[in-house]
Amino acid sequence: MARPTPLSGFPEWLPSQRIIEQHMLVTIQEVFELHGFSGIETRAVEPLEQLLRKGETSKEVYVLQRLQAADDAPQAAADKALGLHFDLTVPFARYVLEHSGRLNFPFKRYQIQKVWRGERPQDGRFREFYQADIDVVGQGELPYHYEVELPLVMARALLALAPYGVPPFTIYVNNRRLAEGFYRGIGLTHIEEILRSIDKIDKIGPGKVADLLVADAGATAEQAHLCLELAAIHGSDETVIDTISELAHREGVNHPLFDQGLTELRELLAAAQVRAPGLVEANLKIARGLDYYTGSVYECVLHGHEDLGSICSGGRYDTLASDGKNTYPGVGLSIGVSRLVSRLFAHNLVEVTRETPTAVLVAVNDEADRHASTVVADQLRARKVSADVAPSAAKFGKQIKYADKRGIPFVWFPPTQAQPQHTVKDIRTGEQHEANPDTWLPPAGDLHPTTQPVAAREQ
Amino acid sequence: MARPTPLSGFPEWLPSQRIIEQHMLVTIQEVFELHGFSGIETRAVEPLEQLLRKGETSKEVYVLQRLQAADDAPQAAADKALGLHFDLTVPFARYVLEHSGRLNFPFKRYQIQKVWRGERPQDGRFREFYQADIDVVGQGELPYHYEVELPLVMARALLALAPYGVPPFTIYVNNRRLAEGFYRGIGLTHIEEILRSIDKIDKIGPGKVADLLVADAGATAEQAHLCLELAAIHGSDETVIDTISELAHREGVNHPLFDQGLTELRELLAAAQVRAPGLVEANLKIARGLDYYTGSVYECVLHGHEDLGSICSGGRYDTLASDGKNTYPGVGLSIGVSRLVSRLFAHNLVEVTRETPTAVLVAVNDEADRHASTVVADQLRARKVSADVAPSAAKFGKQIKYADKRGIPFVWFPPTQAQPQHTVKDIRTGEQHEANPDTWLPPAGDLHPTTQPVAAREQ
Repeated sequence: MARPTPLSGFPEWLPSQRIIEQHMLVTIQEVFELHGFSGIETRAVEPLEQLLRKGETSKEVYVLQRLQAADDAPQAAADKALGLHFDLTVPFARYVLEHSGRLNFPFKRYQIQKVWRGERPQDGRFREFYQADIDVVGQGELPYHYEVELPLVMARALLALAPYGVPPFTIYVNNRRLAEGFYRGIGLTHIEEILRSIDKIDKIGPGKVADLLVADAGATAEQAHLCLELAAIHGSDETVIDTISELAHREGVNHPLFDQGLTELRELLAAAQVRAPGLVEANLKIARGLDYYTGSVYECVLHGHEDLGSICSGGRYDTLASDGKNTYPGVGLSIGVSRLVSRLFAHNLVEVTRETPTAVLVAVNDEADRHASTVVADQLRARKVSADVAPSAAKFGKQIKYADKRGIPFVWFPPTQAQPQHTVKDIRTGEQHEANPDTWLPPAGDLHPTTQPVAAREQ
Repeated sequence: MARPTPLSGFPEWLPSQRIIEQHMLVTIQEVFELHGFSGIETRAVEPLEQLLRKGETSKEVYVLQRLQAADDAPQAAADKALGLHFDLTVPFARYVLEHSGRLNFPFKRYQIQKVWRGERPQDGRFREFYQADIDVVGQGELPYHYEVELPLVMARALLALAPYGVPPFTIYVNNRRLAEGFYRGIGLTHIEEILRSIDKIDKIGPGKVADLLVADAGATAEQAHLCLELAAIHGSDETVIDTISELAHREGVNHPLFDQGLTELRELLAAAQVRAPGLVEANLKIARGLDYYTGSVYECVLHGHEDLGSICSGGRYDTLASDGKNTYPGVGLSIGVSRLVSRLFAHNLVEVTRETPTAVLVAVNDEADRHASTVVADQLRARKVSADVAPSAAKFGKQIKYADKRGIPFVWFPPTQAQPQHTVKDIRTGEQHEANPDTWLPPAGDLHPTTQPVAAREQ
């Protein structure tokens, strides 16, 4: 068999890279759990009709078919209706409905899983990738304070990734109630069309967005200008609220949704200044293209990596799911972990001390005496020190090279006739000393592979 | 939307069950890492021709197709050739070939991922399930001692799961070199047919296996009897080696493969008696149906759950992969984690203290004063104590009920005018006392949800 070639859009990491990804996933999980989110996993597949409820993503769905389904036709017909999930929100909505009788609401859950999209791969866009989601979902109702809580939890999760080279970032927030109230207050009614147009400011520029607002959303040139004036407002403190308020006052906007949205946004910024200072900013051009958001919306960009797009997004939705008896409103955000990780790797922003968990390689003096080395390794493992035994009783130089190639810091030498004591050698410094296999421990910093950020380099 | 119904063969757990599964996966991972295995993940899809190299599994493969692939035909044609992996061995073989230039051999890797099989679901057989694999793969050669090492690592991983209710187990080992040498030594040559027949002893009984040996493997009745006599031998100490040796001697077996296999099996049992006492047993009826095993083979059954079949299997293969320049021999085992976990749940063999990571619920005195409660929660989180804040400033009784329903052990009460001190209440005992949010810690046993085995119950 010839050497296989990579599949475009399906990233795969080397062992050293996987250690970094694993540590990042655990870090994210710890922050979620500290904030009281329960972990769940949903199956990778959903019924196709569930996946296609949002028409626009239908092209991206991978449909499953059993290879020889023709052999048992009725079963095959049922199988045909399955596809791989393309996000973790649709499966979560189904999970909530399916298990609602056995869940306690409000239900705070995190979910870290791979998702699949059949779209054309490009930089930062994959066909298989990890997402890390948090959502809170209520039964019937969900108080606004969760719209404050969730972006702050995400800010902390992303901040906790700084030791892995994740650059500074800003979480941009906006409020659809505020926006809708403002648009209605200046006499506009095609809210969805306006939001879809505003969402394109960064792509096509404000001039063309103004044209769209006139053409698609029934705005006059003056109304379009006001929409853009609102969208241009941003900032992280009370002054941004004042600016919005002044604009609305100037234009005589008087709409309860506007007032509610402004109060909510003020509350979010005030909490962020205390609990996640410098990480959250109101930015009124953030619209999110999807029409199911009804309150706060969030996007997050990495400073210096704006080309990557948002690496963490989400919002409030009044109806995540509904089973006729109850509706389930929610608010949630999702980190595009693979997008983040692949950028760190591509730009060499992070490095790891070794490619294996092994802290100590136990040398083998003689193949007939391998057992003595495995005993030492087991003594170390009993104290949670990861140990490996040399693959062969080669010359010590070759055994040390086995450790060196993998970044294993220590090589242990069991006694020989010439050297009747156990010794351990730090192969980075060459320092070697006697050691007791029942008590010796490596320095804490060498116990596990550790990662560190690398200053951004020119590519 | 009506309440969705479960998809047969795609298990999904409630939050409390997922905590148990997560803890088990982390425990397995820790044992693998202590023994020097590096974690990797491979993509979920492989080219179909790679998945179909073992003809017998072709029916089980899920093929992927993009929903609207017709829109761009050339891309669609390429997509058609992808399927979901049905194990972690085939993807690992491909990974080794693809990345061989950047891996160090022998390469010890673990891999814990979901796999998919389109087979008919039944008890303990799923369409989507977790496997946890370890393999060591060499470039060109792989010493026998890894065939000793790997089942012992698995024995320790499974033993480490006892706190989760995993019952006592035995890892059965056999050696194909020994078996082949014996068969050849008594004049048989259709080795694959013999192994396939022997593999059926438990299913169809020795009488019918004897018939198969005569019909398919060209054995005389006498030779078939000898094959069954060998297959009936089992035991965990040196006496089993003596029994095999005596049988071979009696029958005048003289074949180098037999001698090699017997020496190897002796070595494995001797190591197991020291390093995993009571967990490993030679059992000469273990054949494994698959024809790529060339040395040791392994299966593991849970005592009292023999109906579940093997929950951890594997063996030695001389050619995991080959790229023309090098062959890559390996040895590995795989735990069927979902099969194991679902049995624990179905038989109520394990329980967990709560369904959420939250150790402390901070009560809210007044919605206007929610900030004071979030500050307390953040103080606790800063010391790695998982905390949640009550969803509303309901009566304290209702807030305590929120905690109680989830199994959260502590409720924190920020100061009020009537009670100017912080207090914390253990809602299991009712005990309540003053506490400092900057220093208080729950007892270590309450910091995280903990699991404990439950004595087996009648169903």
